[in-house]
Amino acid sequence: MAVVDIADKLSLFSEHWSPKVVAKLNDYEIKLVKIKGEFVWHTHEDTDELFLVIDGSLTIQLRDGDVTLGPGQLYVVPRGVEHCPIAEGDVSMMLIEPAGVPNTGDAGGERTAEPDYNLLDPQ
Amino acid sequence: MAVVDIADKLSLFSEHWSPKVVAKLNDYEIKLVKIKGEFVWHTHEDTDELFLVIDGSLTIQLRDGDVTLGPGQLYVVPRGVEHCPIAEGDVSMMLIEPAGVPNTGDAGGERTAEPDYNLLDPQ
Repeated sequence: MAVVDIADKLSLFSEHWSPKVVAKLNDYEIKLVKIKGEFVWHTHEDTDELFLVIDGSLTIQLRDGDVTLGPGQLYVVPRGVEHCPIAEGDVSMMLIEPAGVPNTGDAGGERTAEPDYNLLDPQ
Repeated sequence: MAVVDIADKLSLFSEHWSPKVVAKLNDYEIKLVKIKGEFVWHTHEDTDELFLVIDGSLTIQLRDGDVTLGPGQLYVVPRGVEHCPIAEGDVSMMLIEPAGVPNTGDAGGERTAEPDYNLLDPQ
């Protein structure tokens, strides 16, 4: 397992909405993703999901009110809570959740993206 | 669940070697801890452990060689791998692991500390 430098990993890609797995923690995956614009409303019925913003300003829309995160701020969307990330500008963030959780949750559709393991160093 | 501002949480305590739970993710805990000096060699037989350095320079001593982390760098100590954190200066870091994992692993002893939930906002 190699040291993961978050800024270095972020420098290696520019595409949006394509989560990159950079480390594994038991059956969880640590992912980096860049986003801009609005995602789709969706729910993960079986798991919480942690968002940690590295750069930019992220709003997580929730049916009960929005949450806005800047660099160094994190939020855990509880399981079963419908949410929709949106970013006016570019946002770089870390996601932590169990492996195998689809990014679009129950919603599915064209925004569904398989995680990318190309930035994961050999274990 | 409230937004967790890492710097704000770190400003609320100064003691070393006393992990503060700031968020929960399923059955995992997100902890902030300040350290200085050397810990004890120990192993977690049943779980990996994620270290993410926020401030300072952390060395994780391993029997196969040391790993040194600065701000924005993370490392996952695999389950069963003996390790011993050491910091010459003050280090602030995030730990992620399942709830109930003792900080001293199999070693036990006087450095064992119960996690502190006083900085955990109402869920």
